[in-house]
Amino acid sequence: MAERSRAERLARRLQELQMSTLDVEAAAIVSVDGLTIASSLPAGIEEDRVAAMSAAMLSLGERIASELGRGVLDEVYVKGESGYVVLRAVGEEAVLTVLARQQTKLGLLFLDMRRASKALAAVLEV
Amino acid sequence: MAERSRAERLARRLQELQMSTLDVEAAAIVSVDGLTIASSLPAGIEEDRVAAMSAAMLSLGERIASELGRGVLDEVYVKGESGYVVLRAVGEEAVLTVLARQQTKLGLLFLDMRRASKALAAVLEV
Repeated sequence: MAERSRAERLARRLQELQMSTLDVEAAAIVSVDGLTIASSLPAGIEEDRVAAMSAAMLSLGERIASELGRGVLDEVYVKGESGYVVLRAVGEEAVLTVLARQQTKLGLLFLDMRRASKALAAVLEV
Repeated sequence: MAERSRAERLARRLQELQMSTLDVEAAAIVSVDGLTIASSLPAGIEEDRVAAMSAAMLSLGERIASELGRGVLDEVYVKGESGYVVLRAVGEEAVLTVLARQQTKLGLLFLDMRRASKALAAVLEV
């Protein structure tokens, strides 16, 4: 029952993030080994694919930040011609991944993600 | 002789990018297979390491942009607690990688990198 409500709290927080701006298409929390913890994805976006890609990007991002003297990883973003994938660490065990449309205001998205990441980390650590 | 002057033009354009803002620490153009084409790196930053990391990030960034429906890759950035690594495609065969300090104004850096990337692509395609 406690687990159920924790999963619900995570999912609810992801939905809030998704609804905070019209330009967020999908949001998920993924464990560092690539398994989905909670997600709020529209039809047509596969949960497993988001999880696998997030874990791979987190791992390479951490390696690059460290090898090129940028310190501990904070955020990774990938911009394609039709939108963004943004990742941010949630505590030490998970990553928050957001898919956003091309017209997204990045500054606002980063701000929302930083807040969400703190809130999600607090739920995960309970 | 023509090759020599082309390499010089690439290196000069990288230096211009590096000097355009005080916050750019290093800049390099790397082939998609991870070999350095030209670079402007301070002592203490290894060329081979930058090249290998850039190619790995470009390849994963392209895969993620495509698998998660973001279209053709445009830019990747990694933010660590002590600064940024930003990558941008230069034509189809190369990537421009910049290491920047933490206080960098990202909007300005992206603008400078887009311009540099076009200029570098023009030199590479000659």
